[in-house]
Amino acid sequence: MTRELHLNAIYSAAGGNLGGWRAAGSPELAGVDFPFIARQVRRLEAAAFDAVFIADLLAVPDSHPDVIERVATVNDSLEPITLLSALAGVTSRIGLIGTASSTYNQPYTLARTFASLDHLSHGRAGWNVVTSLIDAEARNYGSDTHLAHADRYRRAEEFLQVVYGLWDSFDDDAFEWDAETGRAFRESAIHRLDHAGEFFRVAGPLNIARAPQGRPVIAQAGASEAGRAVAGRHGELIFSGASRLEDAVEYADDLRRRAEESGRRREDILLFPGLSVIVAPTRAEAEDRYEQLVALTHERVALGDLEYWLGNVDLTVHDLDGPLPEFPQSNQSHSSQARIYETARRENLTIRQFVDKRVRADGIVVGTPEEIADRIQTWFEAGAADGFNVSFPSLPGSLDAFVELVVPELRRRGLFRSEYRGRTLREHLGLDRPVSAHAEAEVEAEVAVATR
Amino acid sequence: MTRELHLNAIYSAAGGNLGGWRAAGSPELAGVDFPFIARQVRRLEAAAFDAVFIADLLAVPDSHPDVIERVATVNDSLEPITLLSALAGVTSRIGLIGTASSTYNQPYTLARTFASLDHLSHGRAGWNVVTSLIDAEARNYGSDTHLAHADRYRRAEEFLQVVYGLWDSFDDDAFEWDAETGRAFRESAIHRLDHAGEFFRVAGPLNIARAPQGRPVIAQAGASEAGRAVAGRHGELIFSGASRLEDAVEYADDLRRRAEESGRRREDILLFPGLSVIVAPTRAEAEDRYEQLVALTHERVALGDLEYWLGNVDLTVHDLDGPLPEFPQSNQSHSSQARIYETARRENLTIRQFVDKRVRADGIVVGTPEEIADRIQTWFEAGAADGFNVSFPSLPGSLDAFVELVVPELRRRGLFRSEYRGRTLREHLGLDRPVSAHAEAEVEAEVAVATR
Repeated sequence: MTRELHLNAIYSAAGGNLGGWRAAGSPELAGVDFPFIARQVRRLEAAAFDAVFIADLLAVPDSHPDVIERVATVNDSLEPITLLSALAGVTSRIGLIGTASSTYNQPYTLARTFASLDHLSHGRAGWNVVTSLIDAEARNYGSDTHLAHADRYRRAEEFLQVVYGLWDSFDDDAFEWDAETGRAFRESAIHRLDHAGEFFRVAGPLNIARAPQGRPVIAQAGASEAGRAVAGRHGELIFSGASRLEDAVEYADDLRRRAEESGRRREDILLFPGLSVIVAPTRAEAEDRYEQLVALTHERVALGDLEYWLGNVDLTVHDLDGPLPEFPQSNQSHSSQARIYETARRENLTIRQFVDKRVRADGIVVGTPEEIADRIQTWFEAGAADGFNVSFPSLPGSLDAFVELVVPELRRRGLFRSEYRGRTLREHLGLDRPVSAHAEAEVEAEVAVATR
Repeated sequence: MTRELHLNAIYSAAGGNLGGWRAAGSPELAGVDFPFIARQVRRLEAAAFDAVFIADLLAVPDSHPDVIERVATVNDSLEPITLLSALAGVTSRIGLIGTASSTYNQPYTLARTFASLDHLSHGRAGWNVVTSLIDAEARNYGSDTHLAHADRYRRAEEFLQVVYGLWDSFDDDAFEWDAETGRAFRESAIHRLDHAGEFFRVAGPLNIARAPQGRPVIAQAGASEAGRAVAGRHGELIFSGASRLEDAVEYADDLRRRAEESGRRREDILLFPGLSVIVAPTRAEAEDRYEQLVALTHERVALGDLEYWLGNVDLTVHDLDGPLPEFPQSNQSHSSQARIYETARRENLTIRQFVDKRVRADGIVVGTPEEIADRIQTWFEAGAADGFNVSFPSLPGSLDAFVELVVPELRRRGLFRSEYRGRTLREHLGLDRPVSAHAEAEVEAEVAVATR
């Protein structure tokens, strides 16, 4: 089978850009306006996107007051599980991927909600496993500081094992619903877990039938050493932050190697670098829209965003025309912090220049449909990407433009499907449906008997 | 304003009866079949029901194997938050009430999911506060035994305070979304909580705009002393298990008295006794359907159900033709256990007679539309009920019958609405929209200034 390009859309009230909410045509309260969100997602479904993805944060991030007033986007959006469930009711094919934290959830609750979403959507659920990011999240869950980086990845590993175990509680054919005899299910088809580990004790079984996909798709965005280890062992759909082709290739190779080391196949992992697009029929129009967007981000807001990713530091006490100061490694995202320093040093930028560059670049690719398709095709063919995690700098404008201009160009080139061929997210992605651990054990036992 | 009768429907895959799933026309997998559930709920909405309610349990209950095989109904149903969110997408007026445990959730997560559901549904969310029931639930959340009865009610009280505080994080008019200036919201309109109590430390603010209803409706079913105390202080829609008119009146009076003692008004509390109905155009047909239903419950299943409510005891080691043995007070529902002993003693029943009575009675009211309406009207006019928590012994048959036969009769009597007049669940129920604690504080400060 020829390799197939995949498209996943990040839905963000912000439109994926700090100033995007100020763009013309963007509705007020886009973060909590379900009818508006549903229209966008149905538009993505009409374009046969593999999935829509809802990111998450479990807090209003700490910020300076003047930044708080302006960066409202993460402060007012629907909670992912509820939003995706509602979307399940009003869509029929597009995959539904949501972020949920292994640090601030309990595995029984999480296994159950994602299994339930998978049933509701007839096999379209995906879980983006994160370990959470900032102290402000910890303070909403009983601690002063976020669990240490290494500990939260160890917890994530155990969390995943428990969730897998719970998802296999009932065999696929456990339920009989025999109205005649009154037998509802076979007792031998239900499995307790009795997990007792460092972080969790969970007896099981999970109180819901095995999910249509067996297990919802596991998405992951590990970039640090610990994060890559988890992604290599568990990730199926991998988000990557790489903005240069060579970094994306290196990352893809590393992740596939790690997958193989964990006994998986290279094709069990699909790489989705981020892609934010401003597209227009001509280059001049695209550039013009881009400049309009850049002008919508206040410098103070952009500075606040940088402060956030450096670990909630205060940059205003430093000379903005001097170099980026050395802050200690934060307990947030190690990889994001490292990427910032790498770029600032490579290009020898002052704080102000760096902030300006972030606002201007912000991973946005600007061009004509052909130029955007060229970029997508190059990355796809170089093995840097199996698909893209597309974000839209403003809504609904840049989503409409992508669907109307880029998708048809990708189809002309034979890169992207014209319609869905499968029903489940796994089918869209070409990922196998996982066999239950208990079914596997049975097959092994049978093989052992047969070969004795 | 004349008092208005309310109707809330319990949706249960089981059809609210142990053998109900075996009834003719009941679909397989009714618990996870979202299109089927959505059809039932849209039918309730067409009949202008105030709300649909999804109960919950966080475990597969422990049972003897032969009971497990037959009582499948609680083992395979969609998780309430995801189900209600999906229903929000495919309905527009009916209220959406779900059970969630204050014992096995974190208040930040719960406040957020219910606020999100309220936004998604444009003000139709309700939360049935429970403290959970059985040890099997505890074992899925890290403990061997369920938190002691008194402790879990103390935790519920604190949990509710935290959730209220989080729901008031943003003032109603906090968001400005001024694209011109880039001001998204006023900083003075966002409030940290900084709660530190016996069970929880939660900083806040909650990362979502104040809910359309201000606060989702609080449902409660407190029956023990501790439960009634919580219901009196917080409950707005009160489920009651009373099956005799005089008990329901006593309970209603007690709850209203407790509400007044907490500084609330008598009308802030609405009483919803349970009502399970088998109705047919003639008494003979109704009796016939009832006998068919009774025949669908195995004696062993009914015995298992009794074992469960007595605190997961084993009755099979006792003489089924002897009296119900005295078991110690369980750590589950004190009130359910007490009600069982009360009835068994009052009527001097053997175990088998009692089980048979439960299967036959099970709170089911059997009759013609006029007889059912008489019963509803009597309770309503006696102050025993403001509405009913209607369960349907089998699906879709008994739901259809209720909607087609009983609802029109209630309308003929001027007891029940023909169409929705409001948009939100609070509007359906005639409950005020709660003012934010911060807005209240401001008004008080202004009054203090004005009267100085």
